[in-house]
Amino acid sequence: MDKVTKYRQIICNFLTQQGKIMPLGETIESETIFDEKLALLRRSRWDRYLLIHLGWNGQKRIYSVLLHLEIKDDRVWIQENNTDISVSEILLEKGVNREDIILGLKPAFVRQYTGFGVA
Amino acid sequence: MDKVTKYRQIICNFLTQQGKIMPLGETIESETIFDEKLALLRRSRWDRYLLIHLGWNGQKRIYSVLLHLEIKDDRVWIQENNTDISVSEILLEKGVNREDIILGLKPAFVRQYTGFGVA
Repeated sequence: MDKVTKYRQIICNFLTQQGKIMPLGETIESETIFDEKLALLRRSRWDRYLLIHLGWNGQKRIYSVLLHLEIKDDRVWIQENNTDISVSEILLEKGVNREDIILGLKPAFVRQYTGFGVA
Repeated sequence: MDKVTKYRQIICNFLTQQGKIMPLGETIESETIFDEKLALLRRSRWDRYLLIHLGWNGQKRIYSVLLHLEIKDDRVWIQENNTDISVSEILLEKGVNREDIILGLKPAFVRQYTGFGVA
């Protein structure tokens, strides 16, 4: 299995698993959104993976992107994390190379000091 | 062309067009995310379409879901709209039936009074 196929599986499994943890409230849904098609059309490897909670808490609208990961140029970008989980630690544990993890949530000039990848 | 194929094209064209309007600042990217694969796996028609702006304004992280539409049970759901565009008006103009548009941003009990679809 090539590296990107493995990364793709790791991310899909992780988000699917996280998506099974039900949000508070029966009227809030957990949605995984995996866009792998655009990558094929563009003939580049740019996949996007999101986990979103949306619905209603009484009359209050709930909409929150919990996690947003991407595979871009064979590397895994963490673009959004509204959980208490360290996604980079989980990716490392599951077998993503440290230099292939890009902390998109940190400004570009900081990334060289994080021990993780630099774009 | 069947109804859902038409709706899919309308939504993809609309978000792609909106995605070409560049966000303020060169370091902010506009991303369209189309998930149509999950629908096939689930053998149901549940497609998700998002437009996201993400990047940096200096050292400030920018992350915003501008638009989130879905096709669920042959109907078009508007799940998020952080623009000044009336998405329902545009969908109507492009040929989506009024009763097939669900204003997901309104509480369910209000939808019967909107003139649009009820889930």
